Amino acid sequence: MATKIEIITIGDEILQGQIVDTNSAWMAQQLLQFHLSVVQITTIADRQEAIVEAFEQAQTRAEVVLVTGGLGPTKDDITKKTAAEYFGTSLVRDQKVLEHVRSIFSKRNREMPAINEMQADVFSDGEVLFNAVGTAPGLWFKHKDVVFIFMPGVPFEMKYIMSEHVLPRLSERTSTGFIENRYILTAGVGESHLATSIADIEAELPEHIRLAYLPKLGIVRLRLTGTGSDASVLNKELEEFAQRIKTRVDDAFVSFGNVEMESALLSQMASRKLTLATAESCTGGNIAARITSVPGSGDVYKGSIISYANEIKMNLLSVSETDLAAYGPVSEPVVKAMAIGARTALNVDYAVATSGLAGPDGGTEDLPVGTIWIAVASPKGVLARLFHFHNDRAINIERATTNSLLLLWEVVRDQNSTV
Amino acid sequence: MATKIEIITIGDEILQGQIVDTNSAWMAQQLLQFHLSVVQITTIADRQEAIVEAFEQAQTRAEVVLVTGGLGPTKDDITKKTAAEYFGTSLVRDQKVLEHVRSIFSKRNREMPAINEMQADVFSDGEVLFNAVGTAPGLWFKHKDVVFIFMPGVPFEMKYIMSEHVLPRLSERTSTGFIENRYILTAGVGESHLATSIADIEAELPEHIRLAYLPKLGIVRLRLTGTGSDASVLNKELEEFAQRIKTRVDDAFVSFGNVEMESALLSQMASRKLTLATAESCTGGNIAARITSVPGSGDVYKGSIISYANEIKMNLLSVSETDLAAYGPVSEPVVKAMAIGARTALNVDYAVATSGLAGPDGGTEDLPVGTIWIAVASPKGVLARLFHFHNDRAINIERATTNSLLLLWEVVRDQNSTV
Repeated sequence: MATKIEIITIGDEILQGQIVDTNSAWMAQQLLQFHLSVVQITTIADRQEAIVEAFEQAQTRAEVVLVTGGLGPTKDDITKKTAAEYFGTSLVRDQKVLEHVRSIFSKRNREMPAINEMQADVFSDGEVLFNAVGTAPGLWFKHKDVVFIFMPGVPFEMKYIMSEHVLPRLSERTSTGFIENRYILTAGVGESHLATSIADIEAELPEHIRLAYLPKLGIVRLRLTGTGSDASVLNKELEEFAQRIKTRVDDAFVSFGNVEMESALLSQMASRKLTLATAESCTGGNIAARITSVPGSGDVYKGSIISYANEIKMNLLSVSETDLAAYGPVSEPVVKAMAIGARTALNVDYAVATSGLAGPDGGTEDLPVGTIWIAVASPKGVLARLFHFHNDRAINIERATTNSLLLLWEVVRDQNSTV
Repeated sequence: MATKIEIITIGDEILQGQIVDTNSAWMAQQLLQFHLSVVQITTIADRQEAIVEAFEQAQTRAEVVLVTGGLGPTKDDITKKTAAEYFGTSLVRDQKVLEHVRSIFSKRNREMPAINEMQADVFSDGEVLFNAVGTAPGLWFKHKDVVFIFMPGVPFEMKYIMSEHVLPRLSERTSTGFIENRYILTAGVGESHLATSIADIEAELPEHIRLAYLPKLGIVRLRLTGTGSDASVLNKELEEFAQRIKTRVDDAFVSFGNVEMESALLSQMASRKLTLATAESCTGGNIAARITSVPGSGDVYKGSIISYANEIKMNLLSVSETDLAAYGPVSEPVVKAMAIGARTALNVDYAVATSGLAGPDGGTEDLPVGTIWIAVASPKGVLARLFHFHNDRAINIERATTNSLLLLWEVVRDQNSTV
């Protein structure tokens, strides 16, 4: 029904764990909006045999193959040559592309190294997808009824070519049916308990509607995916099931829609004209970064005081030296004072504070790595909660960040009718 | 030579772009340390046909197949059943695992839903890899000389099973040769120019040493990968080439080692006992988050004032109301005042400030989205630089963050001998 798409990512840097493949997730999201479904993502080395094998296997699975990476000017990139051989075609130098590559260098007042000329090599009987934002052009080639599309691996160049060329063309491939998704964001209840509480609703789902659980720390996103030939009938069915699930999960319901926790929270606060600030110690700016990743967050969020050093806790957040000495920075009195201090200093309705040991070093028997205090100051007072995580610094910071948003959401929700 | 490993990730949530696959990068990094090389990463849907096809193809490519995901308790997970059929084995309920799953629920004072019992189902003739940190056990099964290892997709559970069980066992697979890497982190010079400037060194590399360019915004990481039977000879060769490249790239050299820019920068500042703070507007805590992701960053980094709101720029960073009114918050005078204000308020040697329009909304003809000022205040004064990025909020924030670190690095480097 829906066009089957495979993504092939070429590059040793992903196989060696140098970089995380964020391109594929972005592409998949975009394709989904046009009802194009990704059936497989394959990451391989930039070696001839691996590329040929991946192309052969993708040819049997997919109707469209999106290839990213391996188009750079340096010697470790062999994608185009290998693809030309596999397709039984040749590479020719495209003068328009060459001019463009030259112009990019001259705009930056730099001489073009000779190796960049190769970037203008394209398939002699394929099409060029112009890359206005970089030197490597996109390429479109049909091989035995399967379309192969080549794009550079640099994220913003890939995104440009996808948005300008690939998505508009692929969206024309009329599908005979519809795929629709409904998302229900929940918080504070585990996957198993959610599943148990909605088991009867799930059992009633017809064949053409699937339910998936997408858990992530304290959050579980539920996704209903339906297929059908009549979009309005399908949407009505999905809507009904989504509403029934919402009612059943009750307090755990955060929001409909495929949105992040921080985005749902900011919408709720914005609609009630509430303002927010943070005072971060162990999370080191991560809560602020998550919040400000949301466009328009400035309507609610005013700022943060990141107080890694104790003197900043005292000077800017008015934490008392006595408390710091008596209880230490990782303690209930200090985290509460930080939240109250931020609420006052930054002049907001709600303030969230964190203080803990993210690790990997600095733990003691009494205060092991992973001990993290989180507080929320609100017009009604201040609430603090203690968390015990484990040894990995990045995970501790991420969990503390998510739990800060969850605690804030709880407080805001519970004060819903009264503030 | 090295054991060939394939990673198979099962889950619609990756194919639909719901989550980014960070597990694979982590696994690949760990495996590399034990000279185990990942030849392919394959992401597929949790559907029977897709799982069987991926297993069949991996069987021809790899000696070890690491499978993550698809072990949760809810109905959308069918990995174990499909694998048992493919292997020609059966599933049995493991009492020890069942006890463990029960104990996890009882520790949290929650009743165990009946569906969690299935998590204790294991291959009747396979091995169980005990999962102390979660309910889904790891599984080890040898099928026609290929080892299949199953792990939950939840990152910290996967990491636990990898670290406790999988890596120790896989590292015993003696390889007859060595793979060694050398990394050279460079900044401020593009990939093509770097390649041109070291072309003669690259041409001299012997067959068994490969050079890869790993570009990422203003940073290019060079990686020399060598293989050989004598580790000390190989290391000596790699060391020589790395040193020659360092000398050649001159000012663009940041650091040896597979480290992030922020980590290299903090080491340099720590060794000179310098302190650092930030004042972030448009980057909204991202610089702070990048810096504090580094363990021990507190030795250098004291904190930040995130001033999304103008009143915070005035009250806490001493930006003058006159300047804000005359030039607007996104301007050279204001960003410089923010950097100077942070340096004073947070009492540090160096302070970085950002002010700009991350987008997607709020741009004007004179001040389009993507206009971002960055300033660095140091003991020798304050320096500001203007950047023009494009429309995507996340990318603008990331580029501004990286360029802030680069500008700071330049200033610190150039004041090297004098502060």
